[in-house]
Amino acid sequence: LTVPFPDRLESAIQAKNSRVCVGIDPRAARLPTEFRPPEGASVEAIASAIADWAIALLDVVAPLVPIVKPQIAFFEAYGAAGFHAFERTVAAARERGVLVLSDVKRGDIGSTSEAYAQGHFGHIGADAVTLNPYLGLDTLEPFLHWCRTAGKGMYVLVRTSNPGAADLQDLVVGDAKVHEHLAARLAEIGAGEGLMGASGVSSVGAVVGATYPEELAALRTVMPTTPLLVPGYGAQGGGAEGCRGAFLPGGRGAVVSSSRGITFAFGQGDHAERFGDPRWRESVEAAVVDMRDALNGVCTPAA
Amino acid sequence: LTVPFPDRLESAIQAKNSRVCVGIDPRAARLPTEFRPPEGASVEAIASAIADWAIALLDVVAPLVPIVKPQIAFFEAYGAAGFHAFERTVAAARERGVLVLSDVKRGDIGSTSEAYAQGHFGHIGADAVTLNPYLGLDTLEPFLHWCRTAGKGMYVLVRTSNPGAADLQDLVVGDAKVHEHLAARLAEIGAGEGLMGASGVSSVGAVVGATYPEELAALRTVMPTTPLLVPGYGAQGGGAEGCRGAFLPGGRGAVVSSSRGITFAFGQGDHAERFGDPRWRESVEAAVVDMRDALNGVCTPAA
Repeated sequence: LTVPFPDRLESAIQAKNSRVCVGIDPRAARLPTEFRPPEGASVEAIASAIADWAIALLDVVAPLVPIVKPQIAFFEAYGAAGFHAFERTVAAARERGVLVLSDVKRGDIGSTSEAYAQGHFGHIGADAVTLNPYLGLDTLEPFLHWCRTAGKGMYVLVRTSNPGAADLQDLVVGDAKVHEHLAARLAEIGAGEGLMGASGVSSVGAVVGATYPEELAALRTVMPTTPLLVPGYGAQGGGAEGCRGAFLPGGRGAVVSSSRGITFAFGQGDHAERFGDPRWRESVEAAVVDMRDALNGVCTPAA
Repeated sequence: LTVPFPDRLESAIQAKNSRVCVGIDPRAARLPTEFRPPEGASVEAIASAIADWAIALLDVVAPLVPIVKPQIAFFEAYGAAGFHAFERTVAAARERGVLVLSDVKRGDIGSTSEAYAQGHFGHIGADAVTLNPYLGLDTLEPFLHWCRTAGKGMYVLVRTSNPGAADLQDLVVGDAKVHEHLAARLAEIGAGEGLMGASGVSSVGAVVGATYPEELAALRTVMPTTPLLVPGYGAQGGGAEGCRGAFLPGGRGAVVSSSRGITFAFGQGDHAERFGDPRWRESVEAAVVDMRDALNGVCTPAA
């Protein structure tokens, strides 16, 4: 029998005592020297360097985090060669026992949505994906089917951490904002037949940024069994304290993601002095451990 | 000097006297026998067959339409091999003098959005892309930069043609729906510096479905210089009459897309009898010509 995604995630969270999701956002120019492609390298050489780096990164973070989040845009920038690098990265994470949340933010209708689900769950093998709900909740159906039948998961964009997020997400409809209406609908969908895990957490998650702690806590109340992905930690300005409201008792139900703040810390500030480029692995490890401990510090005991 | 996307599109519309956008949504099982991969074919073989078919399709439609719209999901379903097939399809369209609107519905923040723009405009070479606005209008900026500096275009999802579209798009905010607020903002953005073509049409377009003709006409009023992409023709139930409101005087400012209704018509209804599988090219040509003439019939003379 297939284990539901939320149960696989909760087990990994407990086993590693870690709520950190490492975002893998490769930028060729910022890779450690060991992997950085030379000026004028071919697209294939760049894409290959990116995958090699991502796999070395996974060797470092796999024991420390339950899940990683490769951002497909940074691979897609290199077309088919980049897509191949993305596939290598996903496969390497799975081989190392880390769950994969593919940050694809796809959203389309009917059979088009099915094709995306087939690609990311079926062909590439992600454990979960991020989805964009603007086209409507019927667009989630093909992904829900994979959740029910193949133990996959999804995180639907609800409230993002960028400055322009308010443009649509915060428009006021009656007595609540657009994203609050959406949150209520997602909680309802996620409580449906075949979607709840034995852990009491659903296969239907939500993306809620760390940049507005009060909103995060309020949305947690609206979505009591929804797993949350909380971006915006570190580079985007959110801290552990601001993530407190995301967690369920026992530090369940949420993972917090950081990308550049972990992977490229070796090139900036304090870490540049402590580690620098040749010791980038130690820099990554230290950044993950710091974040892990900071997040564990805001979790409350199991009820 | 780079010619703005809307001017290139308007020239092609006039030159071919056609407002048809052929959607390229490959489904392996529905390809003409000539291209259909055998049961159990490898992913690479399927992806290759899809590209071969798409290129043969382009040979038929290139003289008849200004623009084609490959739907990336049906390629992405096959991972890197599918992405390679997508690149071959885009390149083949450009070689045949047809503009390419890559239907990718991407939407992400900051440098992630930049990476998508680099991939689809820079690396793959699309003339325009579809974008999802849920994350906010700041997410359009990297794409706007390509519009201003490289003659590219974008179509932002406003009102889609699927049953669930109303879930978020039709929520009522003050005296207007979410999608109407969005339309007004897009019209404003599209009128900005460096985005208007000499044709009086902007580089910033909108996707508005053909399934609600009154809405389409109302949105045209809110967005008087916005190029429209109108999906939902044919297979999804919209007809030429329902598209009337999309066009500016002289049949300018809009293209209407159809995918299965053109490409796979040979396998169904009337066309199955008239043409059948071996004569799929004639079926495609007849379907495009019928749609072209029907749309031209609802256009009004230039003002």
